[in-house]
Parts: sequence; C-alpha cells; structure tokens
Amino acid sequence: MTEILNGKILAEQLQEQMRREVEDLREINIHPGLAVILVGEDAASQVYVRNKERAAQKIGIHSLVLRLPATISQAELLTEIERLNADKNFHGILVQLPLPKHINEEVILDAIDPKKDVDGFHPMNLGNLFVGKKTMVPCTPAGIMEMLKSANIELAGKNAVIIGRSNIVGKPMAHLLLAENATVTITHSKTKNLAEVASQADILVVTIGRAAFVTKDFIKEGAVVVDVGINRREDGKLIGDVDYQAVAPLCSYITPVPGGVGPMTITMLMKQTIEAAKRMEQ
Amino acid sequence: MTEILNGKILAEQLQEQMRREVEDLREINIHPGLAVILVGEDAASQVYVRNKERAAQKIGIHSLVLRLPATISQAELLTEIERLNADKNFHGILVQLPLPKHINEEVILDAIDPKKDVDGFHPMNLGNLFVGKKTMVPCTPAGIMEMLKSANIELAGKNAVIIGRSNIVGKPMAHLLLAENATVTITHSKTKNLAEVASQADILVVTIGRAAFVTKDFIKEGAVVVDVGINRREDGKLIGDVDYQAVAPLCSYITPVPGGVGPMTITMLMKQTIEAAKRMEQ
Repeated sequence: MTEILNGKILAEQLQEQMRREVEDLREINIHPGLAVILVGEDAASQVYVRNKERAAQKIGIHSLVLRLPATISQAELLTEIERLNADKNFHGILVQLPLPKHINEEVILDAIDPKKDVDGFHPMNLGNLFVGKKTMVPCTPAGIMEMLKSANIELAGKNAVIIGRSNIVGKPMAHLLLAENATVTITHSKTKNLAEVASQADILVVTIGRAAFVTKDFIKEGAVVVDVGINRREDGKLIGDVDYQAVAPLCSYITPVPGGVGPMTITMLMKQTIEAAKRMEQ
Repeated sequence: MTEILNGKILAEQLQEQMRREVEDLREINIHPGLAVILVGEDAASQVYVRNKERAAQKIGIHSLVLRLPATISQAELLTEIERLNADKNFHGILVQLPLPKHINEEVILDAIDPKKDVDGFHPMNLGNLFVGKKTMVPCTPAGIMEMLKSANIELAGKNAVIIGRSNIVGKPMAHLLLAENATVTITHSKTKNLAEVASQADILVVTIGRAAFVTKDFIKEGAVVVDVGINRREDGKLIGDVDYQAVAPLCSYITPVPGGVGPMTITMLMKQTIEAAKRMEQ
C-alpha cells in the first residue's frame, strides 16, 4: 500500500500550531514580523508574495510587502534592505526572486542580515548548515524534512538519492539528510545512468524541473519518493517531476503535486520567522 | 598499470612556482604574511606548526607563530584574534587545533576574519563553497583537487564516493567534486554495505581515520583512489586508511601514504595565503 504524504494537511496542522504559539508570544510582547520585498511586476512573483502575506495573516505574523519599481537601482535596493535590517519590527526579511536583470541577486541576498534571513539563502546560514549548526535553512528542504519526520520515516543508514543540485533545494537537502545519518548521493544533468543510480534509493528526492521526468525505471520497490517539481502542462494542469500514476504504486510513500511539498515551503518560512522573533526578542 | 599520485613532487613544484610569485609580488610591494596561533604544548601540534613555518619560509611568506599558554582564557584568545584581524601585515590567520578543552573551538574559528581564514574553516567560507563562489577552501580537499587536476583525471559524469563526512575534508570534498560535475555520494559510519557502495566509485576518497580500512572489496577495477588517512602503526610506520599493497594493483591512480595528500595540504595553505594577500593589497 502506498501512503500519500499530504503536505496540505500537515501544513494546515503546523500553521494552526503556529497560530497558537504566536498568540502566546503576544502575551510576552513578542510580535513576529515578516518583510517581503517585491521588485517589479512579475505575475508569478505577485502570486507567491500574496500567498506569503495570506499565510502570515492567518498565523498572526504581521507582514509588510515593500513593492518597488523594476527600475530601482541596486544601490537603492540595498538601502531598503539596510533599513529593514535595522527595523526592530521585522524579524524576517525576504526578497522575492527573480530580480530585474540589472540587479545582482547575490549582492542583494548577501546584504540581508543572516539573523533575519528566513529564506535561509545567505552563505553564512548555508555555511552553518554545512557545519551542522542550528540555523535558518532553505524552506523547501526544511519542509521535506518535516514531512519525513511526521510520517516517522527512518533515515539513518538509508540510501538517499537527490536528483538536482540547486543551492536552495538539492544541496541543502543533502546536508539535512546527511545530518540524519542517511548515505547521500547527489545527482544532476551530468550524471550517467541516472535511472540506475536512482533505483538504488530508499529515499528519492526529485528537484529537476522537468515534467514527469522520473519514470518507473527510477524506482526501487518500496522507496519513499519526494517530488519537488511543479510544472504546468499544456492543458494547464500542474504536474510534478515524477510520473505519479506510473510511480506511485511502487512506493511506500509519495508526495503528490500539487498538495505535497509546496504547502510545506511557505509553512517553514513562517516557522523560521517565528523562531527568528523568539531568538531576537528573548 | 597503476599510476602513483605523488603529492610530494607536485607540492615541491607548486611551492617553487609560489616562491617565484612571491618574489614578483615583492616588486609591487606585496608581502604575504601568515600568522599561526599555537595554544599549549601539544607535541603533534608543535610539529605541524613547525612544518607550516618552514614551508612559509621556503616560499618567502613571512610568518609569525604566536605561542600562547594552555591556560589562556577564551576571551584573551579572542582578543589576540581581533588584533591579528586588524593587523595589515598578516593576510592569513590560522589557529592550530585542537584547542584546550575550556575553549570553544567554534567560537574561536568564527572570530577569524573570513578574508584571512586561509584554513577555509569559517562558516562564511564554507557557505561560499556551498553556493559555488570563489572562496577560501579547506586545504586538504583543495590539495586533492590539485592532484586530480595535475594528472588530468576526468571528473565530469564520474561516480565519486567519499568515505567520511567531516566538515574539513569529507563535506567540502563533496562540493568540490560536485562543482566539477561528478555524481557524488557521501558515506560514513552509518552507511550500510559500504564496500558495495564504494565499489561503484570511479573516484574514491577515503578520510575515515582507520588504518588499512579500505580493502580490495571496496575497489572497482580502474578506480582512482585518494587516501587522506594518516595512521601510525604499532611498529611506528605511517599508513593510510587504504590497504595500499592489496588495493594499488587494481587502481588506475592511487595516492601513497606518506607522500600523497599530506604535502598538498600545507601547500594549499601557502597558496591561499598568497591569494589572500593579492586580494587585500591589489
């Protein structure tokens, strides 16, 4: 029997816990705040930012969306970040990506105070993750770890294979799984015999951004399959990087798309904002 | 035919190149300097520090060894580091480990200015390595990359397996090999069927600290084997983590112990000191 790792339900449960925690924090005069910087008019970014605002509101985190014109200079944007770094009302700062081409994303992300970097993208936080310190972690892999934990999936000694090596999903995922004593393999576009490598995985995390790329051949019977992809098919339907229909029957656990990893990402963003507030105010 | 990756000869060649570079830098008034902090009287540490002094001297890097008593407080040690962070004569600072037990190593390493962290241990530098920025890198994996490069060993698309997951060898090695498009597996004490996993490696890096741990069963015919271990046998002989006699005939390339990785580590330390000087002074 395949169990479906329902991220939507888990996210709702966690968000409800957080709502109560934020209520309690208010009594000791801690008011978690999240500042989101949105540059330009990118349609997808607008949707993502609106979803973050809504989640924050639901939990009771006060939020600010700073909407800046696409024509803003890098120096002006840095000034805004400096201002938010110094603003005690906000414990989390995130810059919605992508930024306009004339702005260097790396410079901008590096300018965020690591203590307020609730997206976990700052090299200082990634370095802390690397050495195994408690730190802010990129939200998607953090959400995946919550899902695995909530289903009591054993990780120690298991073969984990990650398909995709981005700085915000694949690489941090490797460190998080390693910290739980999994044996970790990172694969990517240059990997040879990818299906064969993947089919040795007890835990397979797919974050490659290609619709239904992972087929039955990639799967060991009984594997746990985590699908990070969100791809829009020509008919408008959202599908993952995994060919769900074909793969699901072989798995012990699988995340659906949508309703799997997606809702967990935003939930972890809220969790890290609350944690940042507690660290700064207590 | 097995080729031996002779780190001693390569280190000498590189050090000679560096000596000439330092000579040239002197003409434009750049004088690379390395400060080494040695706390207490640990015999092995004394040897390591002396070797670093000697290498620096040979290359023309001016060096300072700050010998501090084992009784120094953490606060006093931090003050010394602050002083060296501000001292323009020194472009590299390293603290010889281990430190006395009453001092928190993490706090000390984090206090070194990342720009002077020629050991590459600071979380900021490890984070930069993580995201793929040019940065100071832990010297042992940096030295291994130099050895592989100097032998023109292809890495892209190859299966690399690392045995051992320390912050200063195993993990940075994974990122360096990944950046060269290898498929990378990190294994450790909790890995199951370790010999079987290792025997799929085209490149096998062993850094587990157990004498002659890696036997023939771990090796795919034609593999490149890099042995980071240095263990002293009861009869006083230094041996690696690999059973060299048994394994070498199966390999395409292998590093001996001693005379393999060891001499490269100190060479990379010197290289990063020169690079730090160039970055700071130019």
